[in-house]
Amino acid sequence: MICENIGVKDNHLSFAGVDTVALAEKYGTPLYIMDEDRIRHNCRAYMKAMKEHFGENSFPAYASKAASFKRIYEIMKEEGMGIDLVSLGEIFTAHKAGFPMEKSFFHGNNKTFDDVDNAKAYGVGYFVADNISELDLIGLRSRSDEQSGLPAKKQKVILRLTPGIDPHTYDAVATGKVDSKFGTAIETGQAEQLVKKALEKEYIDIVGYHCHVGSQVFDSEGDVYLNAATIMLNFGAEMQKKYGVEFKVLNLGGGFGVRYTQDDPYLDIEANIAKLGKHIKATCKSLGIDVPQIIMEPGRSIVADAGMTLYSAGTIKEITGYKNYVSVDGGMTDNPRYALYGSKYTVLLANRMNEKADFTADVVGRCCESGDIIQPSVTMPKPQRDDIIAVCTTGAYNYSMASNYNRIPRPPVIMIKDGRDYVAVRRESLEDLVRNDV
Amino acid sequence: MICENIGVKDNHLSFAGVDTVALAEKYGTPLYIMDEDRIRHNCRAYMKAMKEHFGENSFPAYASKAASFKRIYEIMKEEGMGIDLVSLGEIFTAHKAGFPMEKSFFHGNNKTFDDVDNAKAYGVGYFVADNISELDLIGLRSRSDEQSGLPAKKQKVILRLTPGIDPHTYDAVATGKVDSKFGTAIETGQAEQLVKKALEKEYIDIVGYHCHVGSQVFDSEGDVYLNAATIMLNFGAEMQKKYGVEFKVLNLGGGFGVRYTQDDPYLDIEANIAKLGKHIKATCKSLGIDVPQIIMEPGRSIVADAGMTLYSAGTIKEITGYKNYVSVDGGMTDNPRYALYGSKYTVLLANRMNEKADFTADVVGRCCESGDIIQPSVTMPKPQRDDIIAVCTTGAYNYSMASNYNRIPRPPVIMIKDGRDYVAVRRESLEDLVRNDV
Repeated sequence: MICENIGVKDNHLSFAGVDTVALAEKYGTPLYIMDEDRIRHNCRAYMKAMKEHFGENSFPAYASKAASFKRIYEIMKEEGMGIDLVSLGEIFTAHKAGFPMEKSFFHGNNKTFDDVDNAKAYGVGYFVADNISELDLIGLRSRSDEQSGLPAKKQKVILRLTPGIDPHTYDAVATGKVDSKFGTAIETGQAEQLVKKALEKEYIDIVGYHCHVGSQVFDSEGDVYLNAATIMLNFGAEMQKKYGVEFKVLNLGGGFGVRYTQDDPYLDIEANIAKLGKHIKATCKSLGIDVPQIIMEPGRSIVADAGMTLYSAGTIKEITGYKNYVSVDGGMTDNPRYALYGSKYTVLLANRMNEKADFTADVVGRCCESGDIIQPSVTMPKPQRDDIIAVCTTGAYNYSMASNYNRIPRPPVIMIKDGRDYVAVRRESLEDLVRNDV
Repeated sequence: MICENIGVKDNHLSFAGVDTVALAEKYGTPLYIMDEDRIRHNCRAYMKAMKEHFGENSFPAYASKAASFKRIYEIMKEEGMGIDLVSLGEIFTAHKAGFPMEKSFFHGNNKTFDDVDNAKAYGVGYFVADNISELDLIGLRSRSDEQSGLPAKKQKVILRLTPGIDPHTYDAVATGKVDSKFGTAIETGQAEQLVKKALEKEYIDIVGYHCHVGSQVFDSEGDVYLNAATIMLNFGAEMQKKYGVEFKVLNLGGGFGVRYTQDDPYLDIEANIAKLGKHIKATCKSLGIDVPQIIMEPGRSIVADAGMTLYSAGTIKEITGYKNYVSVDGGMTDNPRYALYGSKYTVLLANRMNEKADFTADVVGRCCESGDIIQPSVTMPKPQRDDIIAVCTTGAYNYSMASNYNRIPRPPVIMIKDGRDYVAVRRESLEDLVRNDV
């Protein structure tokens, strides 16, 4: 199995020790299920390794765009994680969940006046300024605290830079290249200009630098984190020397790759972090600087393998001489990743796990759209109507990217903890769909 | 301009005769605006041409997946349109809007028990049975009316067939090919089996056949509708002769292409329908059958050019020696079509229409995702923060495909009628985002 929380018992697929077929029956389909213990396990893997190899003040910040709802932030709070937020909606949700906002990082390439004002009001810890335009905005809105009679307070700001690294993952998740909508390029000299500009701003406290070289990075990707760290540490050391900017924080962005299929390699997070820690310490020593506080922002690798989607099979179509299709009762509305990126997934026939897999079909959704494919060419036992079809590793970028296309309500998120299940997000109702219709 | 409802007045972009900059100021951005008169104009173009060239009983059914909310169904009702529905959510919305459901067609490749029961309860006029599995389901649930004590009533059913035509549009919208998740293939003999099976079912009344050869079809596509009609009419005539199935309705599916950019051709709907009508009548004559009631299901060509999206410009990023980026305050959350299909759009700087367009940039969204692009390589006057950026022809597959990715609320839909604006769908609030969070 692709993850240790997946098993088989009595011909049924089990997830987090629970019978998936029983869950599908209890809550209906389509259904997102999540393994709370696995989420915590993944958090702890990063936390432990980072503290050991980077330093005691180091911590992971969960990139909550991977899956954002109240319960997730409660879990992150309990695990002592930081969080990476990208919008006022995420800030609001984390606030509602009681998350301690001083451990939050506010990202994005295009914050608005409203975003900045609200983020300050909710007590966001760190603003990650993507570019000069954002820096101006943050500086301006911070100053206005004083104008409004509130005590002026320096806002902690991290500058988002592009180290010029292409991690050779696919385009849509390659964000460390110079040509990117994110960050300010070191190579072009614009990053240094950004630092100089920040120093002129009375209410901004530059505490360090951020980069993000891409999602779904595996070791084979040519030590992309090591290269990024080298470039960032050199830049930070240079700014410290040239302008006296104390280099307190280095945020290296997104985490390591996860296994969607048997073909994806296992990735040893601890070993990778150990190697990176050694490299960072050696680099800092040779640069003559203290090791900054290291932040990483794993999202996918915290929640992806802690999630699974359950569907009911509907139409089974065999087109003589062509291809077979198995339709499920969800689709690109709850998982748009194949439609967007051609993403690979492992698909299983959950209620007949011990039967022979001798039927090959495209597993497709119920949307009126040809591109509504969950996964092409899946080999499984031939399904019948109402069989349960499970798609593994859907904890990241499924619920968070879901839409109401075709006016289809979004499934609920059911969390499993110690063999018990509970509702984290309720199923959308038909009334929810028309709530804002006049 | 790409559509006659777009103009320029006092350096500002106007839409449906209204100043877009004033609308952006009144309602905030991002903002969907829709031109009610244009929607009605498009409905009438199909209605008039179809009645004239196909016959008085012919009518267009709006494919509401293009844009589904209550107000749209009210307009369709007033225009005497039919509607194409693909889910219980769309059925519920149309019902709430008071649409006369006997003029509705219930589509989809994978209807569930629940869908069928509810569709019957809401009085859906026509079930479009995609395949044998669906036919069984509809037959079974129709019979159960009687079991439950209700008077048994034959359900009008249209069989969805694949005529085996590739309209040479891109893959995701090519659905008339034999290898498709939609419909039952004529070529393989499975369509005839479907007819025979339907005849055995006591509570099913086969009234005709449906096909859909694809969206965004232009004349240059080799007379795709004519070819589809030939195949469908031949099949219907054959079934009538062989099995006595009266050929009452021929539903030819989706409408004609719309102009997203200046490079897209103008399409004369009336001329195309006239040509198709002539062909259908001649074909029926040579086959010795009466001309069936012809239905078409335009969606995109009813609402696309009746819509526009307004954004505020935020970050303007010039990466020395590389590329420029203009970030707007929306993105793939309100318009995922570039991310999904690489769709082309016309982008304008709405508040400075008369200035020289000498700045080229990728117009990108605010999501934390590199693929969040509205349109690459747009040439416009160099924008400044808070300038208004308009994306044209967004009435179809924008609001309906919108998500809350990055926890971003969906924009409202503002309708314009006779120069006055009103809210058709309210802006989502932060509270809406957490409504189902436990």
